[in-house]
Amino acid sequence: MIIIMDPRASEEKVESVQEEIKAIGFRPFMNPGVERKVIAVLGELDVRKADLVEHFQAMPGVVRVELISDLWKLASRSYHPENTIVTIGDIKVGADEIIVAAGPCSVESERQTIELAHQVKAAGAKVFRGGAFKPRTSPYAFQGLGEKGLKILAKARKETGLPIVTEVMDTHEVDLVCKYADVLQIGARNMQNFALLKKVGSVRRPVLLKRGLGSKVKDLLMSAEYIISEGNQNVILCERGITTFEDSTRNTTDISAIPVLKNWTHLPVVLDPSHATGHWQYVASVAKAAVAGGADGLLLEVHNDPAHAMSDGPQSLKPEKFADLMRQLSRVAQAVDRLV
Amino acid sequence: MIIIMDPRASEEKVESVQEEIKAIGFRPFMNPGVERKVIAVLGELDVRKADLVEHFQAMPGVVRVELISDLWKLASRSYHPENTIVTIGDIKVGADEIIVAAGPCSVESERQTIELAHQVKAAGAKVFRGGAFKPRTSPYAFQGLGEKGLKILAKARKETGLPIVTEVMDTHEVDLVCKYADVLQIGARNMQNFALLKKVGSVRRPVLLKRGLGSKVKDLLMSAEYIISEGNQNVILCERGITTFEDSTRNTTDISAIPVLKNWTHLPVVLDPSHATGHWQYVASVAKAAVAGGADGLLLEVHNDPAHAMSDGPQSLKPEKFADLMRQLSRVAQAVDRLV
Amino acid sequence: MIIIMDPRASEEKVESVQEEIKAIGFRPFMNPGVERKVIAVLGELDVRKADLVEHFQAMPGVVRVELISDLWKLASRSYHPENTIVTIGDIKVGADEIIVAAGPCSVESERQTIELAHQVKAAGAKVFRGGAFKPRTSPYAFQGLGEKGLKILAKARKETGLPIVTEVMDTHEVDLVCKYADVLQIGARNMQNFALLKKVGSVRRPVLLKRGLGSKVKDLLMSAEYIISEGNQNVILCERGITTFEDSTRNTTDISAIPVLKNWTHLPVVLDPSHATGHWQYVASVAKAAVAGGADGLLLEVHNDPAHAMSDGPQSLKPEKFADLMRQLSRVAQAVDRLV
Amino acid sequence: MIIIMDPRASEEKVESVQEEIKAIGFRPFMNPGVERKVIAVLGELDVRKADLVEHFQAMPGVVRVELISDLWKLASRSYHPENTIVTIGDIKVGADEIIVAAGPCSVESERQTIELAHQVKAAGAKVFRGGAFKPRTSPYAFQGLGEKGLKILAKARKETGLPIVTEVMDTHEVDLVCKYADVLQIGARNMQNFALLKKVGSVRRPVLLKRGLGSKVKDLLMSAEYIISEGNQNVILCERGITTFEDSTRNTTDISAIPVLKNWTHLPVVLDPSHATGHWQYVASVAKAAVAGGADGLLLEVHNDPAHAMSDGPQSLKPEKFADLMRQLSRVAQAVDRLV
Repeated sequence: MIIIMDPRASEEKVESVQEEIKAIGFRPFMNPGVERKVIAVLGELDVRKADLVEHFQAMPGVVRVELISDLWKLASRSYHPENTIVTIGDIKVGADEIIVAAGPCSVESERQTIELAHQVKAAGAKVFRGGAFKPRTSPYAFQGLGEKGLKILAKARKETGLPIVTEVMDTHEVDLVCKYADVLQIGARNMQNFALLKKVGSVRRPVLLKRGLGSKVKDLLMSAEYIISEGNQNVILCERGITTFEDSTRNTTDISAIPVLKNWTHLPVVLDPSHATGHWQYVASVAKAAVAGGADGLLLEVHNDPAHAMSDGPQSLKPEKFADLMRQLSRVAQAVDRLV
Repeated sequence: MIIIMDPRASEEKVESVQEEIKAIGFRPFMNPGVERKVIAVLGELDVRKADLVEHFQAMPGVVRVELISDLWKLASRSYHPENTIVTIGDIKVGADEIIVAAGPCSVESERQTIELAHQVKAAGAKVFRGGAFKPRTSPYAFQGLGEKGLKILAKARKETGLPIVTEVMDTHEVDLVCKYADVLQIGARNMQNFALLKKVGSVRRPVLLKRGLGSKVKDLLMSAEYIISEGNQNVILCERGITTFEDSTRNTTDISAIPVLKNWTHLPVVLDPSHATGHWQYVASVAKAAVAGGADGLLLEVHNDPAHAMSDGPQSLKPEKFADLMRQLSRVAQAVDRLV
Repeated sequence: MIIIMDPRASEEKVESVQEEIKAIGFRPFMNPGVERKVIAVLGELDVRKADLVEHFQAMPGVVRVELISDLWKLASRSYHPENTIVTIGDIKVGADEIIVAAGPCSVESERQTIELAHQVKAAGAKVFRGGAFKPRTSPYAFQGLGEKGLKILAKARKETGLPIVTEVMDTHEVDLVCKYADVLQIGARNMQNFALLKKVGSVRRPVLLKRGLGSKVKDLLMSAEYIISEGNQNVILCERGITTFEDSTRNTTDISAIPVLKNWTHLPVVLDPSHATGHWQYVASVAKAAVAGGADGLLLEVHNDPAHAMSDGPQSLKPEKFADLMRQLSRVAQAVDRLV
Repeated sequence: MIIIMDPRASEEKVESVQEEIKAIGFRPFMNPGVERKVIAVLGELDVRKADLVEHFQAMPGVVRVELISDLWKLASRSYHPENTIVTIGDIKVGADEIIVAAGPCSVESERQTIELAHQVKAAGAKVFRGGAFKPRTSPYAFQGLGEKGLKILAKARKETGLPIVTEVMDTHEVDLVCKYADVLQIGARNMQNFALLKKVGSVRRPVLLKRGLGSKVKDLLMSAEYIISEGNQNVILCERGITTFEDSTRNTTDISAIPVLKNWTHLPVVLDPSHATGHWQYVASVAKAAVAGGADGLLLEVHNDPAHAMSDGPQSLKPEKFADLMRQLSRVAQAVDRLV
C-alpha cells in the first residue's frame, strides 16, 4: 500500500500519517523525494486491507491510497499506468522515437573520441556513450582515463551537441561524474550496489540502470525502486544479456525481458546488443530484434579501429557498419510504428 | 576432413578409400545416405593435413576433399556455403518467405482442429501444427490422442491443403507418424535421443529439430549432424527457449541463436515464441523480434479456447490475436526484405 | 488424490470406482502395476476435497484414499514415508551401506573390462558399471560396442560376481539389455524420453535414472513417476551435474539435490562425481561431499589408461586412485553412521 | 609475468625496472603493498618471453621473475604454492582446524545478539557473524541497524571473545566498519564493486569475499586479485551458491568450487550453506558435504527465533540444531584429518 500525500501537505500532517501507520503495527517508508510525498506502508497487509485504505484515505493531507501487489511499488505500472518518458535535453526516451546511444567502450584519446562522436551523430545516434571509469574483471586491465576521460566526453558534447552517457562506479565519484555527464550509467556489476543506487537516486540526473548478469527481471525492478524511492524517477532500464550455459555468445540476450518489463513497469527499456552478444557479427541481428520487439532504445559500441580498442574490441562495430545498421533499424522501427 | 565420392563410384572404390583411411591410422565414417557418398575421416588431423588432402584427392572415385574445423561437418556452412532450402510440398523453408506454422498444442477434437486449421490458413499460416503424441512432464497429464490425432490432422490437411508438422517421440512410432505427417518434429526433450535422430535420419521426410532446454547451440548442430549423416538433409532447426534462472517467462528465448546458427550452418532456422515465453502476452513481441533478427519461420500456438486447452493454454493466442500478429509480422518481414 | 484398492478387489469393483471418478468430472489414471492397484484421480481438486475422500473411502474394494499435494504421487514421501530400498541381488541401495558402482565409461575390450572389474571389486565396489550403448553428442564419436559390449559385461559379472549397470538408449533395446544387465541406466539425455521411461517401467529390472542436464529436481521426480506408474518401483535417482554458466567443471554438481530429494521422495539417491565434474582431480572431493551429504551411493568412472580411453578419459580415476578414494570414503561414511 | 623486487630495493631501482617495462612496450603494474614489492608486467607476452625473463632477472634489485599463465597472478597457486593462512586474532583460517563463523543474518537487538553469541560459542563457533549494514533487494526491507549494530557486535565480542565478521557495502563505510570488525565481509552483490575491492585492499583487515550469484570461479579469483594487488593478502574466499534454473533451493551450491579453488589458488575457501540453500532443513547436509569436500570453514546463520527474524529466517538454524550440527561436523572433520 502506498499513500500519496498532497505535495503542499504540512510536515505535521505527514508525520501524523506516519505515526498512525506505526500505531497499527506497520512500518512507514517515506520517499525522500522533494517533488512527491509518497509514504509506502510496509508489512503484511492481510484481511484488513480494505479497511486500511478507507482509514488512511480519510486522514488530512492524503490525496489517495493505492494497493500495489507487486514487490516494486513506485516502478510498477499499476501505480503509474502511462509510460514514463525520460528527458535528456531535447531527447525523449520512452516516446515514439527509438533512441540510439553509440560510441566506444572506453574513451581512449581526444582525437579518436571526437571523430567517433561526429561519425555516430552523422549516422543518426542521439546520445554519445563512452567509458571514463571502467569496471574491469582484472585489476591489470585498462581502468579508463578517469576525469581526463570525462573532460574529453564533455568536449565531444560541445562539438557535436550529443548528450553524454557514462558509467559511475562508486558513491564518491557521483558528484564528479555529474559535472560532465547527462546520464549516469550504473553498470551490470553494480546493479545491486545499493549504496550507489541510493546516491544516484538523490541526484536529479537521469540514470541508465543495466541489468546484472545473474539478476532476474524482478531484481532489476527492485534496483530501480531504490533509485526512484530516493526521489529520482528518471530511470532507464537496460537489458544487456544474462549469464547462462550457452557459450556461443558472451551473454544470452533475454529478448523477452522487453515485453515483460513493458508489462510490469512504466519505465523506458533499452537493449545493449554489443555487450549481450560480444561479437560484432551478431549485433545487427539482435539490434533489429530489439527494435521489433518493442525496445525504446539501443546502446551500441562503435570503434574506428576495433582490433586495437583498449577494451571490448570484438564487439564493436566500425562506423560504416554502424551507419548501415542505422538505416536498417529505421526500416524496422517504421514497421512497428516508431522512428529511429 | 570429409571425402566426397562420385555418386556413381563403385563399392570397390569406396572401400579402397576406407581401407586407406584405416591404413594411415584414422577412422572412416561412411554416410549411409543413398544420394551422396561422403566419408568422414575421424581422428586427430595434425601437421599432415595438407598432404592427406592431396593424397585422397588423387584416389579414384574421389570428387573432392574438404577440411572442416567445426565439430559438425555436414551441417557446417564451411561444407555447404549456400542456404539449404527445405521443401514441404510447395513451401520452401529457408528462402525469402518466412514460413509460419500455427495450430493448437494438442489435437483435441476433429471439429476444433479443422476449424482452427481454416482460421490459421485464412490468417496466412502456411503449415498446420498440432500434437498427437505429447511429451508431458507428468504421466498423469493428457498424453495426446495418438493415431486418432494423426487422422484428424490428415483430415485438416485434406480440407485446407496445409501440410502438417507433428511430433514423433519414439523410434517405433516413426513409421506411423510418417503415414500422416509432412514434417516430423523432434521435441526439445528428445533432442539428444540419438536412436530417434538416427531413425528420422533414415527416412526422407523433413525434420523439425527443436533445441533442448539445457542444450548449447553446438549440441543442436551435433544432433542435426546425426540426422544428416544418416542421409536426411532436410533438417529445420528450432530455437524454443533455454532453461535459465530467469522466471518471468517459461524459458529464456535465446534470440542470438538465430544469427549464430545462420553463421555456423546452412540449415533453416525457425523460432517458437509460444513455448519460449509461455505467456501469450509476450508472444507477439518475441515473434516480431525473431523475424527482424533473421528467422526463416515461426511456430505459433493458436487455440480458440485457451482457457480450456488440454495443454499449454496460457501460451496460446486466440485466432483473432493470431491474425492481427500476422499482419504485424508481414510489415516487419518487409522491413528486412522478406515476406510473410 | 490417489485411491488405493484392495489387491484382491475384483475388476468390477475397480471399474466402478473408475466410472464414479469420471461421473463426477475427474479423470481416473490406473496404475498398471500388478502388485498394487492404485487409481490416481486427476483434475482440479477444489473445495470438495474432503467430501470426495469420504465418498470414495466408502466404496467397495477401496482400502484408503490419500490427498497428495506434490505433483508426483507414487514417488512422494507423503505417499510412502519410509525409505525405499532397491535390491540388486544381495545388494540393497537405500539402506545403511553406501553402494559404489565403478567401472569404465565405455566397455572397450574384454581384457580391459574384466581386469577393471577385478580391480574395482578388490577396492570395495559393489556394482560394475560400463557402457555398451553410448549416447555421444557427435555421430562420429565412438558409439559403444553394443551387444558385444553387453556380453563382455556379463562375462565380467560371471568372473567377479558384481552385478552390472549399463545404459539403455531406446525402447527397442530394452529387451536386449535386460538379457545382460542387472540395472538399467537411463542417461541424462533420455531423462524425458517418455516412451523409454514407460518401457523400463514395464519391466521388473531396477532402473538408475539420471537427472537431465537442464532438468529441475521436480522434473526428475516426474520422470521417476512415469516409471513407477507403469508398475516398476525399483527406481534409483542419480544426480550427475546440471548445466550452468560455470565452466571450471564440465557440469555443476547440485549437491543440495541430495537433501531435497531425501525430503521429497522415498527413493534412493546416488551421485556421479565423474560426469558432474569432468575432471578426475575433483572427483574425490565431490565424492566425499556426497557421502557426507547423505547420498546412498556413488557412480565412479575408473579406467586403467585414462589417456587412451575411448570416451571421458579426463574424468576417470586410475585404479590406485580409486582404491585410495574408497578408503577415504569409508571413513567419511562412518562419520555419518553409514558404511561403504 | 611478475617481477619480485627485493623489499629493500631503493625507489630508484624500482622505477628503473618500471621504465624498462614501458620502454619495451609493456605496462608495469605496481603492487602498492608495503610488505612486498611486486611489479606485474602487462601486455601480450609472445615469443620473447624467455628473453624477457632473463633480461629482467639481470636488473639490479630484482629477486626473481615469474611467468604465470593464470589470469590471476598474486592469487595463483603457481605464484604461492603453499596454503595461505589468514589470521584473525588467535584463529587461523586455512590451517587444520575448520573455522565455523555463526550468528544471525542481521543484528536486531543487543540482548538477542549477545545471547546468540554465547550460544554459538558454547557450541564451538570460533567467529561471530552478523549484519549491521544489510544489502536488501527491496528498499523497503529492513536495512540493518548501521553503526548501532556494529556497537552491539563489538559488545558481543567483548563478552565472548569471539572475533566479528560483518559486511561492508560501500567505500565510505570501510573506515567505520574497520573500527568494530575483525573481518570485513564483501557480499555477493558487491563482488565486482571494484572501488570497494580496492578500498578493502588498502586496509590491513582480513576480507571475506563472497562469490557473486552470477560469477564464475575465475571471476571470484579476479576480484580477490583486486584486493591482493592493493596490498592486502588476507583474503578468504566464500562460495555461497550461484543462480541457476533449479528452484528447490534459493541458490545452487557449487560444491566443486571447493576443489577447483584449492587447485587454482592458495587462499582459504569457506562455504555458506545458509545462503546457498535458503532452507534450514538442507543446511546440515550441505555443511557436512562442504567439510568432507575440503572447505576450510563455514558460515552458518543461527537465530533463536527464526520465524520472527528480520531477514532470512527460513534459512536460520535454531541454537540447538546448530549445536547438534557442530557435533556432526566434528566427526566429519576427523574423517578427513581435520578438526572443527
